[in-house]
Amino acid sequence: MAGTNSSIAKAEGKTPLAPAIILVRPQLGQNIGMCARAMLNCGVTELRLVKPRDGWPSETAGAAGAGADDVLNNAKLFETTADAVKDLEFVLATTARNRGMVKEIYTAEAGTALIHQRNAGGVQKCGIMFGPERTGLENDDVALADAILNIPLNPGFSSLNLAQAVLLVSYSWLNNDNPFKEELYAESDITKFLGDSAPATKDEIGNLMTQLLGALDTSGFFRSPEQKPTISRNISNFFHRAGMTAQDVRTLHGVFASLIGKRRRGTGEE
Amino acid sequence: MAGTNSSIAKAEGKTPLAPAIILVRPQLGQNIGMCARAMLNCGVTELRLVKPRDGWPSETAGAAGAGADDVLNNAKLFETTADAVKDLEFVLATTARNRGMVKEIYTAEAGTALIHQRNAGGVQKCGIMFGPERTGLENDDVALADAILNIPLNPGFSSLNLAQAVLLVSYSWLNNDNPFKEELYAESDITKFLGDSAPATKDEIGNLMTQLLGALDTSGFFRSPEQKPTISRNISNFFHRAGMTAQDVRTLHGVFASLIGKRRRGTGEE
Repeated sequence: MAGTNSSIAKAEGKTPLAPAIILVRPQLGQNIGMCARAMLNCGVTELRLVKPRDGWPSETAGAAGAGADDVLNNAKLFETTADAVKDLEFVLATTARNRGMVKEIYTAEAGTALIHQRNAGGVQKCGIMFGPERTGLENDDVALADAILNIPLNPGFSSLNLAQAVLLVSYSWLNNDNPFKEELYAESDITKFLGDSAPATKDEIGNLMTQLLGALDTSGFFRSPEQKPTISRNISNFFHRAGMTAQDVRTLHGVFASLIGKRRRGTGEE
Repeated sequence: MAGTNSSIAKAEGKTPLAPAIILVRPQLGQNIGMCARAMLNCGVTELRLVKPRDGWPSETAGAAGAGADDVLNNAKLFETTADAVKDLEFVLATTARNRGMVKEIYTAEAGTALIHQRNAGGVQKCGIMFGPERTGLENDDVALADAILNIPLNPGFSSLNLAQAVLLVSYSWLNNDNPFKEELYAESDITKFLGDSAPATKDEIGNLMTQLLGALDTSGFFRSPEQKPTISRNISNFFHRAGMTAQDVRTLHGVFASLIGKRRRGTGEE
């Protein structure tokens, strides 16, 4: 579990303007808490609640929030969906079903990318609505949105719980322009942890090969001289492509020396 | 809740070869069930379990699976992590912490993209490991993997529950090459920009609707009271999705005022 007191400030300092997450008539406090946790995981901090069924504040929400207290304590309460979106300039309604309404439908990826674009072209206050568990948003709620957001899943099994829907949408938003990635990943999506050791140079690997091949000559590993070039090349190829560190090379020098010693001792005793 | 009996067949017919999801020493049956549900949401169907703490099969897993019975019933049980990955050719270990092990670290996006690439270049059996709740994978588990998978989240609050981690990784895999998307979205990246005017707020549009609906009441636009809710909603839906600017709203206020005036004058002249 991560620290919480500075979690919103930290997220807000780092991230672009995140959309408000609007839970319309959510039923279980537990689900509200899990939504807050999923939001904060992704640096999304503004929660709005329209008429939560079991009242607000909620103890079960706090327990399920697993530390996302700042998001829950700062949640804003509204009587109607219209009130909850009043100050927003662009609102997406998350829904799986086709509503028979003329409205653009975006994937989570495209819809959250659009929020970044709107923010980049001058700050715009955006929000994403989610309906109650099971029933989802009503048509009157959806009518208040600019467009529909849909998460493209296995059509044979597409039902998500509320917190999972909030997680996937928040993560899609984060992943479109992820400032946290830079801390871990310098310039690409791939990084390598090397610990204290540097990558081995080709020369170090070459020396290791010389030791090994010399020992294999002595031990009678090569049954005929014709085999030697091909087998040597295959062994060399393996060590050169294996991503060795200088420490790995030192360790293997010791391993080979030990094996050679054993064999010599063994041989001497025979 | 979606249909289940044909859910695996449907997913397997549509999707590329999905990675096996390997849960190492999971504790709660409920979490295993929620993982199965998250997997099937994303068309990922092969579940492997290493020594689940509370035994297997599990009733609580079935209940939490919310219909992902095929995934749970087909789950394979193993005594050790080594056994569970024995037949795989490429394995990623999901972990948040730096293990002090020399190993490449991929984002969920990059790591799952690599699985697609490996499958495209000749089918390779791939897997993704997840550790137990709270403690995560042990170093001896991680050492069996080719590389590390990391989900880049808010570093001030990065703790995910097991099913949410499985969901984000499975969704990242699906989203890299999503066959389900094509059914829904011909062209999903539609953007609109607004020129010099600010976008209208929902409140400004709401005020415009109030003016218009009041005028339509007066003018006898609604032939019967039954019509009014549906027609009002359709009109409201149009104005809210139309991407109005503040200027558009001002213009339409003038347009409606003018129409009302004309009708009044017209009525007076009759």
